[in-house]
Amino acid sequence: LRCNGNKELDKFIELSKPVTQNGTVADYIPALASAKQEHLSVSIRYLDGEEMYAGDFVEAFTLQSISKVLSLLYVLEFYGEEVVFKHVGKEPTGDPFNSIVKLEEGPDTKPLNPMINAGALAVTSLFPGNGVTERWERFQQFLTPFFEKDKIEVDTEIQKSEFDTAFLNRSMIYYLKQNEIINDDVEELMTLYTRQCSVLADCLDIAKIGSILAMNEGASFVSRRSVQIAKTFMVTCGMYNASGEFAIEVGVPAKSGVSGGILAVVPGRCGVGIFGPALDKMGNSIGGLHLIKNLSKSYNWSIF
Amino acid sequence: LRCNGNKELDKFIELSKPVTQNGTVADYIPALASAKQEHLSVSIRYLDGEEMYAGDFVEAFTLQSISKVLSLLYVLEFYGEEVVFKHVGKEPTGDPFNSIVKLEEGPDTKPLNPMINAGALAVTSLFPGNGVTERWERFQQFLTPFFEKDKIEVDTEIQKSEFDTAFLNRSMIYYLKQNEIINDDVEELMTLYTRQCSVLADCLDIAKIGSILAMNEGASFVSRRSVQIAKTFMVTCGMYNASGEFAIEVGVPAKSGVSGGILAVVPGRCGVGIFGPALDKMGNSIGGLHLIKNLSKSYNWSIF
Amino acid sequence: LRCNGNKELDKFIELSKPVTQNGTVADYIPALASAKQEHLSVSIRYLDGEEMYAGDFVEAFTLQSISKVLSLLYVLEFYGEEVVFKHVGKEPTGDPFNSIVKLEEGPDTKPLNPMINAGALAVTSLFPGNGVTERWERFQQFLTPFFEKDKIEVDTEIQKSEFDTAFLNRSMIYYLKQNEIINDDVEELMTLYTRQCSVLADCLDIAKIGSILAMNEGASFVSRRSVQIAKTFMVTCGMYNASGEFAIEVGVPAKSGVSGGILAVVPGRCGVGIFGPALDKMGNSIGGLHLIKNLSKSYNWSIF
Amino acid sequence: LRCNGNKELDKFIELSKPVTQNGTVADYIPALASAKQEHLSVSIRYLDGEEMYAGDFVEAFTLQSISKVLSLLYVLEFYGEEVVFKHVGKEPTGDPFNSIVKLEEGPDTKPLNPMINAGALAVTSLFPGNGVTERWERFQQFLTPFFEKDKIEVDTEIQKSEFDTAFLNRSMIYYLKQNEIINDDVEELMTLYTRQCSVLADCLDIAKIGSILAMNEGASFVSRRSVQIAKTFMVTCGMYNASGEFAIEVGVPAKSGVSGGILAVVPGRCGVGIFGPALDKMGNSIGGLHLIKNLSKSYNWSIF
Repeated sequence: LRCNGNKELDKFIELSKPVTQNGTVADYIPALASAKQEHLSVSIRYLDGEEMYAGDFVEAFTLQSISKVLSLLYVLEFYGEEVVFKHVGKEPTGDPFNSIVKLEEGPDTKPLNPMINAGALAVTSLFPGNGVTERWERFQQFLTPFFEKDKIEVDTEIQKSEFDTAFLNRSMIYYLKQNEIINDDVEELMTLYTRQCSVLADCLDIAKIGSILAMNEGASFVSRRSVQIAKTFMVTCGMYNASGEFAIEVGVPAKSGVSGGILAVVPGRCGVGIFGPALDKMGNSIGGLHLIKNLSKSYNWSIF
Repeated sequence: LRCNGNKELDKFIELSKPVTQNGTVADYIPALASAKQEHLSVSIRYLDGEEMYAGDFVEAFTLQSISKVLSLLYVLEFYGEEVVFKHVGKEPTGDPFNSIVKLEEGPDTKPLNPMINAGALAVTSLFPGNGVTERWERFQQFLTPFFEKDKIEVDTEIQKSEFDTAFLNRSMIYYLKQNEIINDDVEELMTLYTRQCSVLADCLDIAKIGSILAMNEGASFVSRRSVQIAKTFMVTCGMYNASGEFAIEVGVPAKSGVSGGILAVVPGRCGVGIFGPALDKMGNSIGGLHLIKNLSKSYNWSIF
Repeated sequence: LRCNGNKELDKFIELSKPVTQNGTVADYIPALASAKQEHLSVSIRYLDGEEMYAGDFVEAFTLQSISKVLSLLYVLEFYGEEVVFKHVGKEPTGDPFNSIVKLEEGPDTKPLNPMINAGALAVTSLFPGNGVTERWERFQQFLTPFFEKDKIEVDTEIQKSEFDTAFLNRSMIYYLKQNEIINDDVEELMTLYTRQCSVLADCLDIAKIGSILAMNEGASFVSRRSVQIAKTFMVTCGMYNASGEFAIEVGVPAKSGVSGGILAVVPGRCGVGIFGPALDKMGNSIGGLHLIKNLSKSYNWSIF
Repeated sequence: LRCNGNKELDKFIELSKPVTQNGTVADYIPALASAKQEHLSVSIRYLDGEEMYAGDFVEAFTLQSISKVLSLLYVLEFYGEEVVFKHVGKEPTGDPFNSIVKLEEGPDTKPLNPMINAGALAVTSLFPGNGVTERWERFQQFLTPFFEKDKIEVDTEIQKSEFDTAFLNRSMIYYLKQNEIINDDVEELMTLYTRQCSVLADCLDIAKIGSILAMNEGASFVSRRSVQIAKTFMVTCGMYNASGEFAIEVGVPAKSGVSGGILAVVPGRCGVGIFGPALDKMGNSIGGLHLIKNLSKSYNWSIF
């Protein structure tokens, strides 16, 4: 069962587009609030290289939480899992992605997993190098083969806006410093963190990244084991507090972001990139979810 | 990559047996506390019917939380998912399996998922029929093809003991009645719940059940969709608060119980039954975990 | 500064009556929901025996949580503080009166204080005697001098209704049994608990009780020390989660109930009884609060 | 009942000194850890000016949380209660003094009360003036009549140490900025906060402050109403999570600090200053608590 191409994809867009009216565009910073609620795009890239796309696929968007997958892969490749999991746990959580409660009340002093904000901050604090410039440069080099572009573009307006208003993330960083999980300069860490969140991509870029993660043997620039770990987290906690439902309804490793992006991986088959800035109450793209449910059912994608 | 038979399995038992010394047998009721810490057994049953086993495979044990998979399948088959998920959620939780906190503070008034006690109690309250006898009889009929036995055996001593001491479960039932999730007579529900927990099995029985769930097309007596849902929950929350780690280290749908059993499913390949009553701090069989990690690595079982 | 009599009190009623329109009568059981939102009454009884009253003072109401003061006094008198405080703590809580969370997550396995439901259940489980009849009879004897009536009246309709619907209280009892704080039969305890909540009184009765607690030397039937302890709890946690505000705004020991009653104690001076079934969001009589703030300011009642 | 003078006080010190062996000196910063566990001192100052003292009364110590009373009085005097209570609540909490949980899960986005760290940070953020120097200078002027010294001394070593390590306080400040309760520069606020915590005093200074708060009519430099509010908070939440027990056992408004100080107020009678750096598990001076319990019983101090 394989998608027949752009025309077939068009129909999925048509079917899901009306659903975007029931969602809300994120508005905690003005730069995100200007996204168009009705936008919806999708791209599929099969492992043999065939690529298809439909909808508003020319629209670029910032990765936001989708970057959590890439930063996790980065530190796993650099340090190996043993070091990484000293700083972040492996367990899903029933609390919101930006919750600080479990850092105080939880069974452990480290964040529960790398897909929630506290965990991603701990992961980013592991970025190797001296100073923001070097640390970013090295991360950018890691990203290059995923994006198949030399220059990773960053939306600096969004980054600045997020940097300026990220009180909750700074609160978490200090809590993690108290718990001796993070040892970084707070503002340097915030720069690295908001910059990775502000990397620009379109749905074709995301599908490309997904197709790399879908290769069961890994790639020359990222090991099978790191990808395996990342995909596992995407299943257990990639879609905020709707991860369990997504696993049941769609059944593939995926990660969403507050800008409306979804990165999905159909192991051994294809990568999927979706963009639809109208979000549901859980913070996932409402049109994107509708669309990928239909895709998964039509092409029998669930790994379960 | 397929296991060669009992002799090969023997070596896995040998390797993991010493680990049982680091665990503790559950002792909240005397009947469980009498289990032997050093016991460890495993059985694998491939989809073609080949069956192998090693260790203390003659030992029978009570299903305990492993039964949560079977009761979930039962109500899914009877009512369909829409009805079932009005009474129980689909999301993993970072709280302990017997926690009551999220019923008060959670985003919803229903239990987060059917693999924690509150969720399994909600599931059991859906058992159709009038009165304990009829409701149990009907559930037993559902179990028959899984066990390939006409008569499902129950350890009545353990059941009685659990029934008498299950204050925490009764506390949850009343909380769920308050939240209007459960509408059952408390003592009748406790009878059904403790009875399903006290169903007796050995590791070969469990492997058999696992092999049924491993059949990608389902079976005449249980649909592919119900099995798919059950396997998803086993991945996201089957191993208590070590489910995330298990997904990363082992990577197959599994469910453990406090008596030391583990039911695992290798989709398209085999079912696995393990028994080792010495538990780690998370409540999983410590020897069993060690063993299944080695099996998964040796035979490349991870679905991720 | 002393109130001049019924006419002066009338003015306070007049002033506070309009406020009752902003409150809501408790409606979790029909028998309470039939109370009239606009009712408001007050009585003051000075230590020299002078008694005054105003408003709808003929209306009787059930004690509800006001009974927590009396049951605490009872077990303190019977066992002494050492025994009692093995079963219940001494600390205020920021959680709601009917919260179960701290029983799981708190620093201790016992309820935080005797003014929240869990604590009052632990206190009631200490009632001495065999069986409901004897235990109630003995408690009634303790109450007699407070009420200056031989026969303590109970609203059996309200009691039955609360008994039938008290799922949350039963949930707490079982949690406390699990924590080994309570060792009682659940239904017997629920009978004793709902019966004390359903004792009938009017605002003159409550003022009388308050005047007894206002006697700095205690009384023949209740020791100064027990009264001291009760008054302390009334200050730190007598008015649900508005206790802190009440201490600042009014500044006297007080206890409210969901039926709209308030028992207040002005040490060395007088007791106060108030009834006004329209409640604010915290569960306190909205008109009663308004009224007692004005009384406290006019007559300079604050102990701080 | 009045203390007879230094000789009588000596006996109380003698009685409580051995208890200090069961406590632990705070060691989260080296400067505090160097305090001597066996030190214990007390001073009483009656409203007529008579002053008595015993034990290691020459020892000075930093106010730490005792300063929360003074900063609260300061902003109450400056803004009035209405403004202040927009930024901080009035309710006790069952959570630890340094807990962040209720900022996320609580009924309100503001800190529960001004005696916990989050609340004191919100209070300090209200200090009027431009820049640290002016804001501190003005607070110092407010303190002058309390200390009857022109120059308020600060232990700069302790301040620096606390400033450098206060990750948890910074975490709370950012959380409060997120909740729009605090609008201050974080480092400026931390300077003001740690400086007030590091003000030096001995037990005679503290008794003097206590005697000012004990004057029922207030003083020329602090109003009766502000003092009333402060005393109320000292009763409901001045002694960390042992405030309820303290109210029952001692029964006077009091505030303790992590350096081992206790400020107590016996309304209409005297102020009390205690210093004993060995702390109990709740963070209160273990010897100091023992001592003040005995004083309260001997001289019948309880306000209840």
